[in-house]
Amino acid sequence: MDVRDLGEFGVIDRLRDVLGVSYESRLIVPIGDDAAVWHAGDTYMIATTDTMVAGVHFIPRAVPWGDVGWKSLAANVSDVAAMGGTPSFALVTLCLPPDTPVTAVDGIYQGLRECGREYGAVIAGGDVVSSSVFMITVAMFGEAERNADGSPALLRRDAAKPGDAIAVTGSLGAAAGGLRALQGDAPSGAARDALSRRHSRPRPRIDAGLAAVRAGLTCGMDISDGLVQDLGHICRASGAGAELLADSVPVDSVLTDAYPDDARAMALAGGEDYELILLGDEESLSRVGQALGPPLKIVGRMVEGDPAVRVLDADGAEVQLPRAGWDHLRDGSDA
Amino acid sequence: MDVRDLGEFGVIDRLRDVLGVSYESRLIVPIGDDAAVWHAGDTYMIATTDTMVAGVHFIPRAVPWGDVGWKSLAANVSDVAAMGGTPSFALVTLCLPPDTPVTAVDGIYQGLRECGREYGAVIAGGDVVSSSVFMITVAMFGEAERNADGSPALLRRDAAKPGDAIAVTGSLGAAAGGLRALQGDAPSGAARDALSRRHSRPRPRIDAGLAAVRAGLTCGMDISDGLVQDLGHICRASGAGAELLADSVPVDSVLTDAYPDDARAMALAGGEDYELILLGDEESLSRVGQALGPPLKIVGRMVEGDPAVRVLDADGAEVQLPRAGWDHLRDGSDA
Repeated sequence: MDVRDLGEFGVIDRLRDVLGVSYESRLIVPIGDDAAVWHAGDTYMIATTDTMVAGVHFIPRAVPWGDVGWKSLAANVSDVAAMGGTPSFALVTLCLPPDTPVTAVDGIYQGLRECGREYGAVIAGGDVVSSSVFMITVAMFGEAERNADGSPALLRRDAAKPGDAIAVTGSLGAAAGGLRALQGDAPSGAARDALSRRHSRPRPRIDAGLAAVRAGLTCGMDISDGLVQDLGHICRASGAGAELLADSVPVDSVLTDAYPDDARAMALAGGEDYELILLGDEESLSRVGQALGPPLKIVGRMVEGDPAVRVLDADGAEVQLPRAGWDHLRDGSDA
Repeated sequence: MDVRDLGEFGVIDRLRDVLGVSYESRLIVPIGDDAAVWHAGDTYMIATTDTMVAGVHFIPRAVPWGDVGWKSLAANVSDVAAMGGTPSFALVTLCLPPDTPVTAVDGIYQGLRECGREYGAVIAGGDVVSSSVFMITVAMFGEAERNADGSPALLRRDAAKPGDAIAVTGSLGAAAGGLRALQGDAPSGAARDALSRRHSRPRPRIDAGLAAVRAGLTCGMDISDGLVQDLGHICRASGAGAELLADSVPVDSVLTDAYPDDARAMALAGGEDYELILLGDEESLSRVGQALGPPLKIVGRMVEGDPAVRVLDADGAEVQLPRAGWDHLRDGSDA
């Protein structure tokens, strides 16, 4: 058996099995959420890591190196947002083929710097190694706020309950549209630019994560692999089902114009939007929407039963999607 | 110009230039030391990251996968030791070719677990991605103790002064001997096993780092790239020279028996021993030696002048070394 048979999440599950989930009492959120959380003195530390591999996660030379730097940091910022925290510091590891032009390194650093300044994350160190493949790994640290009782104010994947409303921030699908545009199936110039920017310079929702924990919400995650797949993680972690109303999902308007036939499917299953899924009672969700300006959109509800996502049309019939998100080990070979 | 021309340390310097060293006041030790250190609440957090690439940092199938897991964590533990801290949590990123056998992943996890338990580091999370090359990246966190005045008790590279004695823990060169044995130039069975174990299962000196900060020392680092090269980092960071007495350097006794002609050069320039270089007055160093049991060995002294290392023989004449440590970007292609 090789790791292709297990898939990305199978490999992660195996790590959890081998290492044990919580033999250290200071570890509050172990393997299996968007980020780990532990006590350090009077602080709740959030830590996460994310890697981008040339040819798997981005197409070298199809995007400016600055965008590669921005996105590698932004994916990690989004994991901190997904926990309801605030980013602080990051470590950056570059794996570089020896013939990498120095201008590429400078471009990556520039993109890292721009994203770090935008979100308050300081690059504190890292590592540089030689490799036949270009990769960038960011490890990011943040801090969680405290509730009135001193407990950490966190959004977790395992805190959903049947009856909870499911909401999403912003609109979805534009990043998948941007990838499609970059791959050559491009709409007109302005739409292409808008969509590819959403793909290459995503804007994580630190604001929404903070608004959520301040409104008392405790369940949420970011949309990195696609709404349906990511909601599936919440279902499995929480032991409950989800009913998603396909027509309620907010589809990016530029995407709808550019790819009218596929826009809804891309909003349901396309990855890397880095918006947040937030769950809880409608009153708390409405408070979050008010704090953010543009309201959250409620797109479904948690239900008793199978820990899986059912996508329903306006008549309540189940919709089959062409694919539900990404698994990098299974999909990597054809990317 | 490509990154081969800059070299590993040139690329890191460039990151420092682009990002600025300390625009965030909570950052106590920025890019350029063994690890970064920052304030988080009432805690001084230490963070470091280190990557091992198949074919560059280890030879796949020449060593058990458990040793790859152990060493990838141990290299990071050693960076925490080099700051005088205590490890706490780690994130692990695996970059896996899809045809990696699952037994390899299990072996790596087992080695990670063994090393983590030995040094009190808990694997709190990570990432798994598809890649054409096997790599493992560990990001590790630790905490620094406080001095009586509340300041962080740290060993830094930039704190050496002319007149300071230079000491090393343990004995050196065995890891380089182990690499040579694994590459086929093997001595007898028992020596081969002892040396390759020092290469594959290094034992970082958390004990020595803690003893050093408790004795009031403020300058030190770990020996990962070789004594001469690593001491050179201290010279440049501190703006002072170093005179190293070649005959004083403690050479591993098994190494001396196995490779009598090369043992001293391997102790001076061979990497991955993960012992510590500690600098300061002889009285404080002697207190560290007493705390550890086997005394530290004083191997030289910091001097005024050029920020570089001069290796001297018993007559005070300068010794030329065949090579001084590793630069992964420059050396990677022939490894």
